[in-house]
Amino acid sequence: MGEGRVLLAHGDGGEMMADLIARVFISRLGTGDPPGDDAARLAAAGQLAFTTDAFVVDPIFFPGGDIGRLAICGTVNDLATAGARPLAVSASFIIEEGLAIQDLERIVDGMARAAGEAEVQVATGDTKVVPRGKADGVYITTSGVGAIPEGISISGANARPGDAVLVSGPVGDHGLAVLSRREGLQFEAEIVSDCAPLGGMVQALVAAAPGVHVLRDPTRGGLAAALNEIARQSQVEIELLESAVPVRPAVAVACELLGLDPLYAANEGKMIVMVAPEQREAALAALRAHPYGAEAAMIGSVRESGTARVLLQTALGTHRILDRHVGEQMPRIC
Amino acid sequence: MGEGRVLLAHGDGGEMMADLIARVFISRLGTGDPPGDDAARLAAAGQLAFTTDAFVVDPIFFPGGDIGRLAICGTVNDLATAGARPLAVSASFIIEEGLAIQDLERIVDGMARAAGEAEVQVATGDTKVVPRGKADGVYITTSGVGAIPEGISISGANARPGDAVLVSGPVGDHGLAVLSRREGLQFEAEIVSDCAPLGGMVQALVAAAPGVHVLRDPTRGGLAAALNEIARQSQVEIELLESAVPVRPAVAVACELLGLDPLYAANEGKMIVMVAPEQREAALAALRAHPYGAEAAMIGSVRESGTARVLLQTALGTHRILDRHVGEQMPRIC
Repeated sequence: MGEGRVLLAHGDGGEMMADLIARVFISRLGTGDPPGDDAARLAAAGQLAFTTDAFVVDPIFFPGGDIGRLAICGTVNDLATAGARPLAVSASFIIEEGLAIQDLERIVDGMARAAGEAEVQVATGDTKVVPRGKADGVYITTSGVGAIPEGISISGANARPGDAVLVSGPVGDHGLAVLSRREGLQFEAEIVSDCAPLGGMVQALVAAAPGVHVLRDPTRGGLAAALNEIARQSQVEIELLESAVPVRPAVAVACELLGLDPLYAANEGKMIVMVAPEQREAALAALRAHPYGAEAAMIGSVRESGTARVLLQTALGTHRILDRHVGEQMPRIC
Repeated sequence: MGEGRVLLAHGDGGEMMADLIARVFISRLGTGDPPGDDAARLAAAGQLAFTTDAFVVDPIFFPGGDIGRLAICGTVNDLATAGARPLAVSASFIIEEGLAIQDLERIVDGMARAAGEAEVQVATGDTKVVPRGKADGVYITTSGVGAIPEGISISGANARPGDAVLVSGPVGDHGLAVLSRREGLQFEAEIVSDCAPLGGMVQALVAAAPGVHVLRDPTRGGLAAALNEIARQSQVEIELLESAVPVRPAVAVACELLGLDPLYAANEGKMIVMVAPEQREAALAALRAHPYGAEAAMIGSVRESGTARVLLQTALGTHRILDRHVGEQMPRIC
């Protein structure tokens, strides 16, 4: 293995598929227990979180990660938004005929490293192969099951007037890293995806600040889409202070050149946190004590309002409504 | 809605995506609780089963079903192979730009009906859109979480010498239904996919025959692949009686014409059962009492052997080894 390309016959349930799965997947990811069954077994009690995401990022390798690392991080971060500890992840591959097996191995290596860091097992999976021109390299769908500790109730519907709005670090890194690579753009400082599993950071945060009401990872649609979703779920107004939102200089330059707004750019290793005001400092300290939250900042607050909306206080001090965008900004970013 | 086509902008996290999800998905499938979060919540205790499958069937509509019904049945049937009752299913869509929204609605209707029959909720989902020529209509990945009742231990590793090998009905219907439609073949009697959720049948079976050791749905690779997997997992020899395997006449004719073997053709509504010999009749009676098992038959037995293999006793009375096939027989059958 390691040489050659994926063939249609690798996806049809026969000997070649069994061989590919054993050599590429099981050797890197381990297996559920008992191996060979169509369903993995988990032990669980209490409240579970359950989530899924499809990953179609283009290109499949980008600065700071690859589609495999992204697929693990995306799903464990969705579990983290419920305050859940991941129990198991599944991975389904849709592979375009002709994908280099070396590329597939590199992707599965990326998954294995991210899963190791997130302390979760890829317990079950599936592989399909489609003819050339019916996919683009590889698409991966991951699902995750997590255990929600007793007493934890974190939801986009729980934002309360007075809550502080925090973000765990600079925004837009993932979106601009992928887009720059795709468009062949070169900047003085390379922009690197923030793609990271945030479960450890979130556990430390919730331990330090049990008054966390909302967690949300601002992926597709960026900070703007995530804050709008929360505003609607909780029926509150969120005031966002533009000048307080951390953006790396290279990302700001790239956005300027491409005519993009970093508030709409995807992140894959950031968390929005809404927390009772008296626990704001404890929450910020817990975030900043973690490597993935070192540049955490307070970026706004939740206010009582008759209208569920996000109000942006611009750098000039004026206010405008920050909508979810309409129409395409960045396709295939995750 | 109902008119128009899916655009790239329907997949980018903005207003149009929220609209598509609300109108096409949530209206048909309901939502997890609380709606709007990235992870659904489930209550569970004890042993869980967890499974995933990607569906890339071509064509997406075929006699007896569609990719939506298939995606639900495939996953709830994988849960059923562990004796598990489904708790929740997730659904991730990878949609090719240009798919008719009417087609998407029809597919989601198919999912909703199958989920209703299986008594399971689609609790969480995801939607991505890729450019024209980067997929083929739509691909769906479903994952499922199920509860394994206490005392149940069903696995491909549990076959024991002496076990009776049953199948819940005629084999090859799904594979030949899809292939006939794809190749534009017409037969006197239309071949209809057997695509069905088997949880109810399995629960009745296990209640009547607690000595069920193995359940396996013979999908890709058919009966031959599934029996070979079980032989390896359990380190036993399985003798399969060719003349006892039920095959519909129309399927036999189509296989003859296409040069295919029904033992390798995919099923999406059949279950292989291995059960202690003293419970064989109780198991057959329970299967036959259910609409999806009316044509159940005993097709072989498990034997002690130094070699894990499947031995076929042909209609002529001779024996040969029935391998998993090598190389492609039927791509994109599920």
